[in-house]
Amino acid sequence: MESDLFESDHLLFRDSVRSYVEKHVVPNLEKWDADRLIDRETWLAAGKQGLLGLSVPEEYGGPGEVDYRFRVVVQAEIARVGASALQSGFSTNDDIVLNYLLRHANEEQRRRWLPGFVTGETIGAIAMSEPVAGSDLRAIGTTAVVDGTDWVINGSKTFITSGILADLVIVFAKTDPDAGSRGFSLFVVEEGMPGFSRGRKLDKMGLHAQDTAELFFEDVRVPQENLLGELGSGFAYLMQSLPLERLGIGIAAQVSAEAVFGWTLDYVKERTAFGKKIGEFQGLGFTLAELQTAIEVSRAYIDRCVRAHNAGTLTAVDAAKAKLWATELQGRVNDAGVQFHGGYGYMMEYPVAKAYIDARIQRIYGGTNEIMKEIIHRDLLKA
Amino acid sequence: MESDLFESDHLLFRDSVRSYVEKHVVPNLEKWDADRLIDRETWLAAGKQGLLGLSVPEEYGGPGEVDYRFRVVVQAEIARVGASALQSGFSTNDDIVLNYLLRHANEEQRRRWLPGFVTGETIGAIAMSEPVAGSDLRAIGTTAVVDGTDWVINGSKTFITSGILADLVIVFAKTDPDAGSRGFSLFVVEEGMPGFSRGRKLDKMGLHAQDTAELFFEDVRVPQENLLGELGSGFAYLMQSLPLERLGIGIAAQVSAEAVFGWTLDYVKERTAFGKKIGEFQGLGFTLAELQTAIEVSRAYIDRCVRAHNAGTLTAVDAAKAKLWATELQGRVNDAGVQFHGGYGYMMEYPVAKAYIDARIQRIYGGTNEIMKEIIHRDLLKA
Amino acid sequence: MESDLFESDHLLFRDSVRSYVEKHVVPNLEKWDADRLIDRETWLAAGKQGLLGLSVPEEYGGPGEVDYRFRVVVQAEIARVGASALQSGFSTNDDIVLNYLLRHANEEQRRRWLPGFVTGETIGAIAMSEPVAGSDLRAIGTTAVVDGTDWVINGSKTFITSGILADLVIVFAKTDPDAGSRGFSLFVVEEGMPGFSRGRKLDKMGLHAQDTAELFFEDVRVPQENLLGELGSGFAYLMQSLPLERLGIGIAAQVSAEAVFGWTLDYVKERTAFGKKIGEFQGLGFTLAELQTAIEVSRAYIDRCVRAHNAGTLTAVDAAKAKLWATELQGRVNDAGVQFHGGYGYMMEYPVAKAYIDARIQRIYGGTNEIMKEIIHRDLLKA
Amino acid sequence: MESDLFESDHLLFRDSVRSYVEKHVVPNLEKWDADRLIDRETWLAAGKQGLLGLSVPEEYGGPGEVDYRFRVVVQAEIARVGASALQSGFSTNDDIVLNYLLRHANEEQRRRWLPGFVTGETIGAIAMSEPVAGSDLRAIGTTAVVDGTDWVINGSKTFITSGILADLVIVFAKTDPDAGSRGFSLFVVEEGMPGFSRGRKLDKMGLHAQDTAELFFEDVRVPQENLLGELGSGFAYLMQSLPLERLGIGIAAQVSAEAVFGWTLDYVKERTAFGKKIGEFQGLGFTLAELQTAIEVSRAYIDRCVRAHNAGTLTAVDAAKAKLWATELQGRVNDAGVQFHGGYGYMMEYPVAKAYIDARIQRIYGGTNEIMKEIIHRDLLKA
Repeated sequence: MESDLFESDHLLFRDSVRSYVEKHVVPNLEKWDADRLIDRETWLAAGKQGLLGLSVPEEYGGPGEVDYRFRVVVQAEIARVGASALQSGFSTNDDIVLNYLLRHANEEQRRRWLPGFVTGETIGAIAMSEPVAGSDLRAIGTTAVVDGTDWVINGSKTFITSGILADLVIVFAKTDPDAGSRGFSLFVVEEGMPGFSRGRKLDKMGLHAQDTAELFFEDVRVPQENLLGELGSGFAYLMQSLPLERLGIGIAAQVSAEAVFGWTLDYVKERTAFGKKIGEFQGLGFTLAELQTAIEVSRAYIDRCVRAHNAGTLTAVDAAKAKLWATELQGRVNDAGVQFHGGYGYMMEYPVAKAYIDARIQRIYGGTNEIMKEIIHRDLLKA
Repeated sequence: MESDLFESDHLLFRDSVRSYVEKHVVPNLEKWDADRLIDRETWLAAGKQGLLGLSVPEEYGGPGEVDYRFRVVVQAEIARVGASALQSGFSTNDDIVLNYLLRHANEEQRRRWLPGFVTGETIGAIAMSEPVAGSDLRAIGTTAVVDGTDWVINGSKTFITSGILADLVIVFAKTDPDAGSRGFSLFVVEEGMPGFSRGRKLDKMGLHAQDTAELFFEDVRVPQENLLGELGSGFAYLMQSLPLERLGIGIAAQVSAEAVFGWTLDYVKERTAFGKKIGEFQGLGFTLAELQTAIEVSRAYIDRCVRAHNAGTLTAVDAAKAKLWATELQGRVNDAGVQFHGGYGYMMEYPVAKAYIDARIQRIYGGTNEIMKEIIHRDLLKA
Repeated sequence: MESDLFESDHLLFRDSVRSYVEKHVVPNLEKWDADRLIDRETWLAAGKQGLLGLSVPEEYGGPGEVDYRFRVVVQAEIARVGASALQSGFSTNDDIVLNYLLRHANEEQRRRWLPGFVTGETIGAIAMSEPVAGSDLRAIGTTAVVDGTDWVINGSKTFITSGILADLVIVFAKTDPDAGSRGFSLFVVEEGMPGFSRGRKLDKMGLHAQDTAELFFEDVRVPQENLLGELGSGFAYLMQSLPLERLGIGIAAQVSAEAVFGWTLDYVKERTAFGKKIGEFQGLGFTLAELQTAIEVSRAYIDRCVRAHNAGTLTAVDAAKAKLWATELQGRVNDAGVQFHGGYGYMMEYPVAKAYIDARIQRIYGGTNEIMKEIIHRDLLKA
Repeated sequence: MESDLFESDHLLFRDSVRSYVEKHVVPNLEKWDADRLIDRETWLAAGKQGLLGLSVPEEYGGPGEVDYRFRVVVQAEIARVGASALQSGFSTNDDIVLNYLLRHANEEQRRRWLPGFVTGETIGAIAMSEPVAGSDLRAIGTTAVVDGTDWVINGSKTFITSGILADLVIVFAKTDPDAGSRGFSLFVVEEGMPGFSRGRKLDKMGLHAQDTAELFFEDVRVPQENLLGELGSGFAYLMQSLPLERLGIGIAAQVSAEAVFGWTLDYVKERTAFGKKIGEFQGLGFTLAELQTAIEVSRAYIDRCVRAHNAGTLTAVDAAKAKLWATELQGRVNDAGVQFHGGYGYMMEYPVAKAYIDARIQRIYGGTNEIMKEIIHRDLLKA
């Protein structure tokens, strides 16, 4: 059954996104992968088209869109052409960094930072993971020590999406080693601050156009005005922001799985072997039927989550389920997609090959799916 | 995420169903299984409580309820106590037999037959499968031959739900061997007609209280007034009725899976081994988390199907997906449910054991899940 | 690929087993299920035919067969006709109880007890599980307290295979609450000892002919001569005996899965739908191909385990793998077997239905498969 | 349980392979991936060490090794360091091309071609697949037309392993369009023949060091002496060669899965989160236990196949099972391997990431796993 999530406004907006995608995304996909970077023009063009900073209130230059379904439209249209790296960059800005800023930035900070997220001039990043601390963020080693009215940050971060280009990085640092969960705070580190440097662009299995990187902080002096929210609330903020981050990943997984399934279906209805279209063979057909069903079933849940997010009732556990479920589905769809393309599924010129390697990180980042299961498990024990 | 399908009316109705279940179902479950039959009193009590014939229009004594969610309430409450055989009997009446009568019976027939479905006095059955024709109904051998103003039916049917008790049986028979799909018609055979006999109650793996049986028709003379709908339209009618039949099975699977999961969760939070509640072990916990997620995801789809059915937009393919998906889920939940009960999961005094054997037929009847996959497969090729 | 486990001696012995099975097992299967008991004549006939007590040394009346492959022959032939309850009874005697006696009984005890295992006059049982202690045997409550030269046993056991008929029961009891793992001992309780009583025959999901029961011990006075092995070594003995018990279950699972697959293959090559044998449809065919492959792959491992057992090199972890793997496979094969029989798969007259419900306990008893995984997991951490 | 396939000779040979791998393979892995090519020195060094052309008889300069277990040793040692592209190149020479030559080349051809396979001077390729004909080889369009004593070949091939470097290419061409299966023949095309050209190196998802390419044949004039075997027997030869090709892939999958599992186990026993080694968490542990079991079970089957191949009894269906089973297992192990490495599993510096993308072709080439299932399916129908 088709999704009934969108109304006419969303469909109109979709046309706009689609025209952007045709003009600015499709012609550049290969170049971005080869460059291992998406150029800033792409962001600026998206800003011009009104695709970025959707949730930024009007007083800061944004459309102030509180209906998250418009973000789903953006995700779906980018997924439709397999631009996973762009999707991940945009999502980091709109679903993660902006979410922090809108919740915790003070008026002065909002005025300073929000407009750039609408125009595409500001690329944001969130710096949490460290070489020895991924899922277990309490184990981080990056510290921020007060010095006069400044904070001095030391440490290193890794797996940072948009790490090379980011103009504004929200850094998760320990501000009080004795305060447990209350000992972490968030700081906004900006491009150009002395002591802040980018490491190498990480050589990943896929998502090549995404400039994932290591970041280094060596006595980076951050003024008080760049502390985000209250001191000691970093861990709590992070917990609050995870639902939207995970819902965002779940949606990306869902719409991408739908796209990959569509390409695969087209292929098997075109490709001939032993005198028939290969899609007519029941052996393939049963798997296609199962996947199509799984995709529609999953969509019903994702849509329900989007509506709950709009209504402010999406819980952290719901979001964990969305992330877990949709990314697992995506993995299965991609795997079958490659398989059913035969030898061509292994060739990078086919988008299914790119989708396969790009998406493998989806079950890992934003909290591994094992962490999702443990979140859900604990919740079951509570009830 | 919780289902948001029900509104206050449904919740009120649920209380009523629940009181019926507590009073008439729970105390009799074991007896029914031992008797291999559900007594008629149970049906009459359900009729009195207003749980049967929901869709029968007011002029024929029914509530004329067009909102299918009330049927979902009935299904869920019966599933909650594991009364699968009753569920299947009620569903045959309300989701299958009535569906045929409401669509195809003429005014005289409606007046004659519908009231009994509201009071519980009439137990209906649908006789399609034959020993050599299950999924492939065009292969049936039962014939109806015209003789004056009567039809004379010969043949045998098997796997007939409510076969022993049924007062009214809709029989699928070949009326014209040369007319292909247009050569089948539906006849209502009633208790007492000469030549109509019941075979043995089938000895099934589970669903013991369900009086599944063989039916024999030996020169059964059926008057013209018992022809249902148009001559030669039997196969078409059957196709039209399948979506609701399958949605009904899907719903039964979903609500039963929810119930079984609940019992299992209760058990693992109670049972101790190696010094902890066994539900606390992460090995079990991960599976529980996956199943809980799967159940909620599936529920979102089933709810969407119910709404589509209410809106008249549920397609045969959607219903096939609902049946396929929910019954597969039910199979997995039941399997884990038994497993996590350890030795007790194998003991009939635990409802999970009964659910396990009762539900195994769900992936088979109403069209095997392989047939569902083929329906979906063909639909994918069309699009 | 076919198993190459058997040599000509085994094939000769197989003929003998087969003739026993045709004569004594096949004609009685239904009766046993109806009686919820296998009669003693069946055991005596097996003893006469030389199928029992294979490992009993010649000096105690047995064949002293050290090649375990003969036991595999017995298992396979009984599985071929779906006599799971008999299989489980014989296996309890030959793979479990005898294993304890041969390892730990003293000369006097051997002379007293072993001969009956060869003739079939003695049916043995092993009483470990208790209502609150299944996998976690250290949690048992049954105690044996010394009183003069006797031990006085109090407690209750459950899920005891052959519990109703057993003449000789090895009871696992706590002899020293302060000694940890060294605080358990084994006692042989014999039919007729005052205070030893059988509870009800448990009402199980399947394996109906198996007289699984609860056992009660109320001040049962057991003479010193019935202490098996050394005082305080019960837990250690249990650990030593588990590999063969689990290998036995793994073999039963393997040979039964082979049998069920065979019945299913016969069925799908016979049954017609939509103008073809249903086995010709590729949708079913792919699953059949996967299962056939899985069965042969699994067989290679089981054969390797049997050879290792013969060589005395089978470890507890190897046996846990055999039990886990083969019973999971059996579950999948049985599930597909039922499914591919369509409605008939749900009818008890088809052996696949019986196999389905009989085998569900295989993943639970002898240590649940979750316990197997944890055993393997811990072993991985060690290495 | 450990494999018992190898005897002391194999272990000695293993040391030799291992020293080669340490010296010539490990230091070059990254370079090869970057170059998208393995240099000829690597082949020559392997030849010098005696690792190539194992089956070449002594009279043609080889060791004449008929025990295939030595090839398994080579495969395992290369897999141990993740050198998939080298593995695939060596396997193409030793398991595929040589197999054709040894079976079908005449004395003159043997003398001409075999020695180079021992020294590593000759890199071979087999050119079957075409853009529109993969699994269905009867659909190929490449033709060979007789012209005097020569054959003139026209057509193009794709997905050719070692396509860029190959000195000797066995080309599958249609020689008689009206002869059905008897209308195909094999020709040896050699580097330098006019009209034979290499297309672009294909841009694959993984296996970057493998020079997979398209090959073009434009009026390539091949002398009669390069016809391999009998005219019209090409298709039959191909069928005969597939078992060893598929067994080779199955073995590569098995030994690679073992290696990846080992790396993963090392990682989870090292990596800490939430105060423990992550491998200690039971959620991961259960999956590790299942995979370890699956690997050992699969190994037993692969070993059985190797022994059958040595004995000359391995059937085409057995080999299809080995290919299907082991490559599916490899897929699962690799997926879990990446997942359990967390973010690092996505980084190319970790061998698990490379293994993941390298191995994705294993379920596709040598006949897709869907073709394997159909082969097994048909065989089941026959029996």
